[in-house]
Amino acid sequence: MYKNIKVIAFDADDTLWVNETYFREAEHQFSKLLSKYETENKIDQELFKKEIENLKLYGYGVKGFVLSMVECALELSNYNISQKTIEAILEIGKEMLEKPIELLEGIEEVLEKLQGKYKLIVATKGDLLDQERKLEKSNLLKYFHHIEVMSDKKRKDYKKLIKHLDIKPSELLMIGNSLKSDVLPLINIGASAIHVPFHTTWVHEEVTKEEQSKTNYKTVLNIKEVLTLF
Amino acid sequence: MYKNIKVIAFDADDTLWVNETYFREAEHQFSKLLSKYETENKIDQELFKKEIENLKLYGYGVKGFVLSMVECALELSNYNISQKTIEAILEIGKEMLEKPIELLEGIEEVLEKLQGKYKLIVATKGDLLDQERKLEKSNLLKYFHHIEVMSDKKRKDYKKLIKHLDIKPSELLMIGNSLKSDVLPLINIGASAIHVPFHTTWVHEEVTKEEQSKTNYKTVLNIKEVLTLF
Repeated sequence: MYKNIKVIAFDADDTLWVNETYFREAEHQFSKLLSKYETENKIDQELFKKEIENLKLYGYGVKGFVLSMVECALELSNYNISQKTIEAILEIGKEMLEKPIELLEGIEEVLEKLQGKYKLIVATKGDLLDQERKLEKSNLLKYFHHIEVMSDKKRKDYKKLIKHLDIKPSELLMIGNSLKSDVLPLINIGASAIHVPFHTTWVHEEVTKEEQSKTNYKTVLNIKEVLTLF
Repeated sequence: MYKNIKVIAFDADDTLWVNETYFREAEHQFSKLLSKYETENKIDQELFKKEIENLKLYGYGVKGFVLSMVECALELSNYNISQKTIEAILEIGKEMLEKPIELLEGIEEVLEKLQGKYKLIVATKGDLLDQERKLEKSNLLKYFHHIEVMSDKKRKDYKKLIKHLDIKPSELLMIGNSLKSDVLPLINIGASAIHVPFHTTWVHEEVTKEEQSKTNYKTVLNIKEVLTLF
């Protein structure tokens, strides 16, 4: 299996290291700051709506998330939110950007075994600076040829990536936690993918059963099982 | 000249299209919003300080700029800035992200003549999504192999770029408006560079006479003169 593969691309957040957990924590802090205006449930919903509304303009990553939190706080509070609370929201973002890295179990062993045999890259849709910083803190930098930051992870973006890498679709294998972003678009363009689920998935990354059923890919429950597939 | 060159990298902002002008306009709008608290000069200085302070965390691009404006407004007003003014600051950022593209004169002619002979790439330190969107709006996408987003443009970042491109330093030529970011670091690592000054330069991009005098590079006043150098 995977005998034509030249490049293995790893998703970063929630594949190499914990990330979504920190967004969930930030959302929880945000809803506590706004608790006198709305229920936690309503605040969660409104923030999600605001994020999706701004996604086209801001893209993925912490900075856009913080801008959406500020905008959401202004609107949800009917412009009564205090200036100090806005400062506290900015602070949530800064803390996110300075979080230590918590590697997912087994990832280093996998990278060590695969390096040298394949060109390993990171393919992520976060902020470049943030992802570079995390990769540096993670001590995983030495395993990767480079980081590929993608503005989105749809079919057209992976086609662009393949062109950029000067390879054929069949020579790319993607490994990641998001079916929607790391698996399905690759299968659809003739590349390979391995799904390694993470316990928390952002609603925006969830896919329906129908979307899943049409395609072929491997799912492993622990990243170390990837090694048994080669 | 330039006979070993394989890849020509173009800076994006203020090399392909107008950008710094929009940041200057945004700063002007920002200081008008805060005019009851401080003089325009003081506001400019404080915003610049805030941007530099946050640069390590936020990196370059519009989103980090907006977050710095919000933080600066809170502090400069001693937390008296109105909620509606904060919304107006977010709006300045959204407008910047939606600005139409104004190509610099001659750029399309240059790209047309160079394409096919060299691998042309965009090397920029803005936000990926924002730069991709601008490239799409500019209709210049067809000339470039890909966009290279860099978290910074120092020597180490260009070394990373060269590794990523799998070429030698002497095979890279960079064309851009910033001596500090697009010219000097390249000369220092054995690559080539052409300087095409833009009328407005961000203070952070300015270099001293001493820094300039040590190195060899070409300066052209109009991008079209680049063609005479090959």
